[in-house]
Amino acid sequence: MLALDEIGLSETAWDLLGVAEGDEVRVSHPPAMDSLADVRRRIYGNRLDTTAFSEIVRDVVAGRYTDVHLAAFLTASAALPLDEEETVSLTRAMVNVGDRLRWDAAIVVDKHCIGGLPGNRTTPIVVAIVAANGLVMPKTSSRAITSPAGTADMMETLAPVDLDIATLRRVVEAEGGCIAWGGAVHLSPADDIFVRVERELDIDTEGQLIASVLSKKIAAGSTHVVIDIPVGATAKVRGKDVADRLAERMTAVAARFNLAARCLQTDGSQPVGRGIGPALEAFDVLSVLHNKSDAPDDLRQRAVTLAGAALEIGGKASQGSGAALALSTLAGGAAWKKFEAICEAQGGLRTPPQARHVYPLVAPRAGRIVHIDNRKLARLAKLAGAPGAKAAGVFMEVRLGDDVDRGQPLFHVHAETPGELAYALDYAARAGDIMMVA
Amino acid sequence: MLALDEIGLSETAWDLLGVAEGDEVRVSHPPAMDSLADVRRRIYGNRLDTTAFSEIVRDVVAGRYTDVHLAAFLTASAALPLDEEETVSLTRAMVNVGDRLRWDAAIVVDKHCIGGLPGNRTTPIVVAIVAANGLVMPKTSSRAITSPAGTADMMETLAPVDLDIATLRRVVEAEGGCIAWGGAVHLSPADDIFVRVERELDIDTEGQLIASVLSKKIAAGSTHVVIDIPVGATAKVRGKDVADRLAERMTAVAARFNLAARCLQTDGSQPVGRGIGPALEAFDVLSVLHNKSDAPDDLRQRAVTLAGAALEIGGKASQGSGAALALSTLAGGAAWKKFEAICEAQGGLRTPPQARHVYPLVAPRAGRIVHIDNRKLARLAKLAGAPGAKAAGVFMEVRLGDDVDRGQPLFHVHAETPGELAYALDYAARAGDIMMVA
Repeated sequence: MLALDEIGLSETAWDLLGVAEGDEVRVSHPPAMDSLADVRRRIYGNRLDTTAFSEIVRDVVAGRYTDVHLAAFLTASAALPLDEEETVSLTRAMVNVGDRLRWDAAIVVDKHCIGGLPGNRTTPIVVAIVAANGLVMPKTSSRAITSPAGTADMMETLAPVDLDIATLRRVVEAEGGCIAWGGAVHLSPADDIFVRVERELDIDTEGQLIASVLSKKIAAGSTHVVIDIPVGATAKVRGKDVADRLAERMTAVAARFNLAARCLQTDGSQPVGRGIGPALEAFDVLSVLHNKSDAPDDLRQRAVTLAGAALEIGGKASQGSGAALALSTLAGGAAWKKFEAICEAQGGLRTPPQARHVYPLVAPRAGRIVHIDNRKLARLAKLAGAPGAKAAGVFMEVRLGDDVDRGQPLFHVHAETPGELAYALDYAARAGDIMMVA
Repeated sequence: MLALDEIGLSETAWDLLGVAEGDEVRVSHPPAMDSLADVRRRIYGNRLDTTAFSEIVRDVVAGRYTDVHLAAFLTASAALPLDEEETVSLTRAMVNVGDRLRWDAAIVVDKHCIGGLPGNRTTPIVVAIVAANGLVMPKTSSRAITSPAGTADMMETLAPVDLDIATLRRVVEAEGGCIAWGGAVHLSPADDIFVRVERELDIDTEGQLIASVLSKKIAAGSTHVVIDIPVGATAKVRGKDVADRLAERMTAVAARFNLAARCLQTDGSQPVGRGIGPALEAFDVLSVLHNKSDAPDDLRQRAVTLAGAALEIGGKASQGSGAALALSTLAGGAAWKKFEAICEAQGGLRTPPQARHVYPLVAPRAGRIVHIDNRKLARLAKLAGAPGAKAAGVFMEVRLGDDVDRGQPLFHVHAETPGELAYALDYAARAGDIMMVA
């Protein structure tokens, strides 16, 4: 295939090297990757310093780590959990290898939910309330990793979210806030690599979680952040002791970067709102912003609580009065006006799609809803097609404590194709109690 | 590319499924892989039972584990070392997923060297001595993994080693022994998968090492095994304490499978013999078997010690008299005769190749050889082309304690091409002291 003194390159290599046909190239062995010695030391129980984490993360982002190396590093950080100093070092290393945004404001507010609770889509409401009160809140969100919808997936059914840095800056300068997909900006690029492997292993450790969350916030130029930690038997954080520890460590590490973090533990016993899936969650968000009488009250309450905390740490409300300010911003219509303006600035408000195939799952007997399995509901929504199929998911008809009759719908499965509907229903039939009626 | 109701398959899938064009196939999601939950439990510090190891190893051999999963399992077994029960469970699981050889003999002898010492090529000599004394010794060996030559690589320069089970059985029935490559027989197939990932991580943990060695011996139908543990600052095992622990654990685990193991700690301070690399080591082996006056005495002594131990545990010599019997078998020519017969049975004795490019590295000053770095010598031999280039490697001109003049050759680098020679010499110039002259 090649003559002597000719070389063939992969398409990736062509792109990376920026070479043209006929160029002369020199080939040599890559330099030894010393950071793997640090990974090995960590496997055998030795803690690492800032330099070691910097070199590991630098090599990871340069694409020098194979999946085997990445998995070993993450497994070692799970087997012997990162301590506070290591978490600070990892966070710093992750910030330093990516871009950093800087804003022309003394206070830049952010929020984050550590996830695991279907339908917990407070972000658009919080951003609208906070920005309507004059604070700067340049919110970037992820797409779904293991869930049926990420905030970016949901928001995309309402407005474009794939903003480059220039557009994002223009939106924030005009409206004080944005709700954009973080993937288009190059913040904490190591995180995406780690998250892919963590997902494959289905592990999520405290140190990595903190470094993941905070590195993105620090890189985004935030000075204050509200962190939502849902706690429940089938949420990501299952007990108050774990949540307390996580909140304490998160706040301490954030402080090392002059980032003021306030962690709020919230109810994680059941999904938030009624929709699970991009479009179904968007309808919930719209109904809260429109102050509809049938808007899900739990979503409204959570958004108000979180926005209130953001207004307090951002200096727009005194301690204890943030929630009231948030609620009046919502009730008076200012939040919806701001949300509409942000959507227009991002490229125009859209109407979310509706599913063509909807099927009810009903109570097998009369009784009271005593348990709801978040994980099974999320699984079901994914099997129905979410988040790829925007209209797909699950729409809740009951909540914990409700009394139901035999045959009464517990929830509806929404799908865009009959095949996905059948696939989801097949899982529902096999999965055991998704909701427990006693 | 495909019409409705048509499916395209990878070549691997065609082979595995054994389907033909036009066949009807049904596609469904793979069943959930429950053993990953055990891997996760192990990462978080919980010990696993026999069932868990069986399911993990079954899924590994079925090709269901990605590199990420494999690396996580091996890293978890390094971060919290396998205890004795876990090592027994892993060994059993690894034996059970592969073939097992059975021999028509009450005693089947084996030997193993845990490696890390260049040139330590006692196996062909030991097999020849033991088989010449009427014991059954069906020896299978590996090719180089990280070293410049595995026993199979070396032996291949003297005779065919790629024997299928039928041929191997015929050779052993005719001659009592063989020196074959283990890759052609399907013993402990999980081991090859684990070893590939361990090599990529450059970790080698006690539990995995024991399971790796013993699963192969048990599957090969051995009843008695002699294990050579070289101990030295730059060998795989660096201290007596580690060697003692390894020997104790190895013997205890072997006993659980009715396998009698005798571990011998040997000098690991410098390479064995003079050659490092397939053909150069073969010349050492031949000179010992031929009782040449310039045969490397250290290789002869080690082979006699190990063969003596094998003769003792195999019941052919009383305790303490094995080495003398081994030596007389060697000196009387019976070992060479047996080796020749085994080579003929395997397909014919060959003459190893010689390198065309040989270059001396000389002492930078007069003095005494006080340190030899096994790892750097192995690296050098590999850069010169070993084991792919059979004639390549390093030929030692001095040993520890020798007095040398300035400019006297310490060793020669052998290469098959000028490029490989240059590459090796470039490393030698950069590597620091390969041998220390003081």
